[in-house]
Amino acid sequence: MEQLLRVHNFSVSRDGFGAGENQSYERPFGHADPGDMMAWAGATASWPNRTDPGGSRGLDDYFTRDFSRNIGAEIMGRNKFGPQRGPWQDHEWRGWWGDQPPFHTPVFVMTHHLRPSFTVSDTTFHFVNDEPAAVLAQARAAADGRDVRLGGGATTIRAFLDADLVDTLHVAVSDVELGGGSRLWESPDELDARYHHEVVSSASGVTHHLFWRR
Amino acid sequence: MEQLLRVHNFSVSRDGFGAGENQSYERPFGHADPGDMMAWAGATASWPNRTDPGGSRGLDDYFTRDFSRNIGAEIMGRNKFGPQRGPWQDHEWRGWWGDQPPFHTPVFVMTHHLRPSFTVSDTTFHFVNDEPAAVLAQARAAADGRDVRLGGGATTIRAFLDADLVDTLHVAVSDVELGGGSRLWESPDELDARYHHEVVSSASGVTHHLFWRR
Repeated sequence: MEQLLRVHNFSVSRDGFGAGENQSYERPFGHADPGDMMAWAGATASWPNRTDPGGSRGLDDYFTRDFSRNIGAEIMGRNKFGPQRGPWQDHEWRGWWGDQPPFHTPVFVMTHHLRPSFTVSDTTFHFVNDEPAAVLAQARAAADGRDVRLGGGATTIRAFLDADLVDTLHVAVSDVELGGGSRLWESPDELDARYHHEVVSSASGVTHHLFWRR
Repeated sequence: MEQLLRVHNFSVSRDGFGAGENQSYERPFGHADPGDMMAWAGATASWPNRTDPGGSRGLDDYFTRDFSRNIGAEIMGRNKFGPQRGPWQDHEWRGWWGDQPPFHTPVFVMTHHLRPSFTVSDTTFHFVNDEPAAVLAQARAAADGRDVRLGGGATTIRAFLDADLVDTLHVAVSDVELGGGSRLWESPDELDARYHHEVVSSASGVTHHLFWRR
């Protein structure tokens, strides 16, 4: 059985940024407002962080509920894990997600600065200093036959796209302008030589871009 | 945990028919061509009956792969199960699906003419002569906490809609005209008083209608 590498529910601004500038402990998306960027997902019934019942069950919900389908591991960049740069100063930092991370699988954090693995609830974080292909091989081995999710940020997705390792990619373009930050693309059409590309507008105001290999 | 009653991937013609007239062993959709009605689904990577690799992974694939997510039982009308009317003449008939039905759960077939349950692979067919609410109660009990799929045909879906038992409904309108047959609706807007309703056009030419309770 083929093990795909899949990007899901990655939100970017109209001008192609996945996060703003000046990330900090208080602002995981830097000057970008995650409430604006992710509003479409937070409104759905299947949003992993939803605490109250209800939520929409229209088009956007199909995307949020696909987040965990047949996923056995996640790969993320260091800046998705936290705001520290360079050698780890704060070893107590265990990610933004509190004591119930939404991953429920092994997570491979790409960093030049290794630290020991640890487990929070049913998510184990591993720290790896390797090329994308080598990290993907580790994640596939850990995924127990299931697919691997590539969680972002934009720089990490770009590295895997440049290495031609991504099988399917779902990007939601929100109607906000950031002007700077972590860039995914100049234009969604950049990928069209290598991928089928569908564009679907949602009632929530975001535009979903779906890519799969040609 | 709430157990939803869900309709998925139900295809109708532009004029609102789920199947044509004159169903027979040779023509499960009567004068309608299932190749036309279901072409959008058959082209996707996740289509349950797919035998060759490949297939599209765009919008339509999100719909086909949702078919089995968290489903613990299916309810169908007798005419989805087979072409016989009245008392069963052919007891050898075990549905259209050969030795690998795509359900993998208990299936409750609504009929005025009972016959013993039987199992094909991992699908068990039960025959029930009850009102929609009573059939739904049996299906929920069999679904082991998961949701129940309402499989059609159109007459069966109408009966559950009229009894206000359907929680979510996905209907794909194909660009074919049937002129007669088993009618789901005069117009998709009929349900708007009771349901949120999103309309999404697919690159394949079908229009997906998504309904969930207000």
